[in-house]
Amino acid sequence: MSVKLHDNYDNLVKNYLFSEIAKRVKAYTEANPEKKIIRLGIGDVTQPLCKTVTDAMAKAVEEMGVQDTFRGYPPEWGYDFLRNAIVEHYAKRCRASLKMDDVFVSDGAKSDCGNIVEIFGDNEIIIPDPVYPVYLDSNIMQGRRVTFIQANESNLFLPSPDGIEGGNYIIYICSPNNPTGAVYNKEQLTKWVEFARKTSSIIIFDSAYEAYISSDEPKSIYEIDGAKECAIEICSLSKSAGFTGTRCSWTIVPTELMVGDKSLNAMWARRQATKFNGVPYIIQRGAEAALSDEGRKECMAQVEYYMRNAKLIADMFKEKGVFFTGGVSSPYIWFKVPEGYTSWEFFDKLLNEVQIVGTPGSGFGKNGEGFFRLTAFGSYENTLEAVERLKKVF
Amino acid sequence: MSVKLHDNYDNLVKNYLFSEIAKRVKAYTEANPEKKIIRLGIGDVTQPLCKTVTDAMAKAVEEMGVQDTFRGYPPEWGYDFLRNAIVEHYAKRCRASLKMDDVFVSDGAKSDCGNIVEIFGDNEIIIPDPVYPVYLDSNIMQGRRVTFIQANESNLFLPSPDGIEGGNYIIYICSPNNPTGAVYNKEQLTKWVEFARKTSSIIIFDSAYEAYISSDEPKSIYEIDGAKECAIEICSLSKSAGFTGTRCSWTIVPTELMVGDKSLNAMWARRQATKFNGVPYIIQRGAEAALSDEGRKECMAQVEYYMRNAKLIADMFKEKGVFFTGGVSSPYIWFKVPEGYTSWEFFDKLLNEVQIVGTPGSGFGKNGEGFFRLTAFGSYENTLEAVERLKKVF
Repeated sequence: MSVKLHDNYDNLVKNYLFSEIAKRVKAYTEANPEKKIIRLGIGDVTQPLCKTVTDAMAKAVEEMGVQDTFRGYPPEWGYDFLRNAIVEHYAKRCRASLKMDDVFVSDGAKSDCGNIVEIFGDNEIIIPDPVYPVYLDSNIMQGRRVTFIQANESNLFLPSPDGIEGGNYIIYICSPNNPTGAVYNKEQLTKWVEFARKTSSIIIFDSAYEAYISSDEPKSIYEIDGAKECAIEICSLSKSAGFTGTRCSWTIVPTELMVGDKSLNAMWARRQATKFNGVPYIIQRGAEAALSDEGRKECMAQVEYYMRNAKLIADMFKEKGVFFTGGVSSPYIWFKVPEGYTSWEFFDKLLNEVQIVGTPGSGFGKNGEGFFRLTAFGSYENTLEAVERLKKVF
Repeated sequence: MSVKLHDNYDNLVKNYLFSEIAKRVKAYTEANPEKKIIRLGIGDVTQPLCKTVTDAMAKAVEEMGVQDTFRGYPPEWGYDFLRNAIVEHYAKRCRASLKMDDVFVSDGAKSDCGNIVEIFGDNEIIIPDPVYPVYLDSNIMQGRRVTFIQANESNLFLPSPDGIEGGNYIIYICSPNNPTGAVYNKEQLTKWVEFARKTSSIIIFDSAYEAYISSDEPKSIYEIDGAKECAIEICSLSKSAGFTGTRCSWTIVPTELMVGDKSLNAMWARRQATKFNGVPYIIQRGAEAALSDEGRKECMAQVEYYMRNAKLIADMFKEKGVFFTGGVSSPYIWFKVPEGYTSWEFFDKLLNEVQIVGTPGSGFGKNGEGFFRLTAFGSYENTLEAVERLKKVF
């Protein structure tokens, strides 16, 4: 006999995607040390933090070293100064009106995407295929039943609720989407909100890429009427302010969101107060600065830098008549690989023929087979050269 | 119909301890605005971060603002520089030999104390009474069966495994203990390790107060032979380096720790990689500095500052012949309230008669009734005055 382990871990499919990429790139580099490889596979930012943010953090570091301004335990839900800055961000940039009590500051969207299901019982989870693998893995770890909805070329990788039977679902929606770059418009999101309300389902809306939206698609689910009664939103500064290594995000659980007589806001507040001890003061000051007018201006200059890269790639595919999604309102370009190739075969072709590293779409789900993801997070110079090389393949 | 919520949240007893304290203090202050209250109830540090730490973080902030030294996603298990510094800390200061792979850097002991049970199935949990409330609450949230073992005056608040039947338990041990300040010696801890090995149980050892140990009690469970095969250790810089608002801790899951053919190290690695995205680079540099020789020296000067306060209080109780634990090797002093008082009645007496705020022991569990916690985290001047006032009560 021994202690029991969590069986659900056995149901996890080990995701070899990024380790397999690393392995193949290493083998190629060792065999061809003279070749210059361009990496457009990463989903990580590369531009440094902007000055408004580092100034604010430097000041906070100083405060922490002085008796009178030292801060101990932060509030588990975030300092009021940051929760207010987030409310203002929604009012100014997302056409959504929130209250400070709706906002929970956290250390990352990845943590919250997984932890949020802790407040729910054993409901059926709806996840689009392909998608960011964390939704699936964290729900399998929790022992949840997952149903996939199909995202594919015919719906431009934007599945609708049409045809979904039953109800009481927890539904993950990511827009702009990782990995497809597809963005829901207001009409499409309204359909999801109406579906959730009609079927007593809850939407978990991942808006981590909101800053990349350049047209009038909703940056927040709360731009849709009735969303406060059926949706939780998870957002992050990772991609909008380069915070992947600085770690700050938030989750919105509106006080209006009730299940029967239970407030989900109160449940999440209790969960966070019990199992989380808040985000470092220094980081919260950086986050506040990133959301200020000056900070956002500097951050958006970086977003535009990445989007110039995205446009270079997207324009090339347009010119070549290759089907793709993203590239507009998203740092990802998700394209169809040429006839006769699997995603991994095309990975090898790109690596061997033009020394470009991307991400095989099949790594994000069954429907990703035959597709491929490139990202705009490289340097402008490298992206320019990558596009010239790609032209030779198509 | 609606989505199902997590029923276990209904089993949580709402802990009114600190809100009730705040309410009573507020009422008293409003009625007696001229009285000076001394707060010895807080479990939070008050001394600022030491210079070695703020220097390291200021440098890291600078690096994050420059292209060449910017860092994106951190490794989910911590940067090697910090994991190595932690291994060295154990070698130099805890007589324990670990490997880098055993170490997982995290944002707080509170998070890990709760999250760690995710890798286990439905085992019986053993928790001492009284104890830090997070062990109980996070296990109830997870739907676990909790059994209390009795800590009391007769065992000096250091319960032993004698008399525990059965096995396959998950056992929480906190030494130096919060709230009792009691510290296990090597012989006592050896008994626990032997019990765990004999009964196929796992110990979760909370060593957050290790820096306060001034004699030769173990600072780490891994000072005990065989502990790597049966124990996980959770430690934090909150109390040793004033990191309550800076947030950095670690969990040790030795690669030697197996359940059947399953490696708990591999399971925790997978859990963290899926549901956590690492600690900010800036904070990890601060943590590394706190563990350096110079950093530790500065931090220990603060620990000594607090321990001077603890000694003032402990000496007074010794003089008065009041039973207490802690005060040595712990920033907490846990004393028996005078005959005829409950913990809360004594709280009122201290507040009303000598304007001292402490924490009623009954807030930490059934066995805390009739006891009271004071902390050494105040200023020296206030503690000195508090002791003079306390003398009038005893």
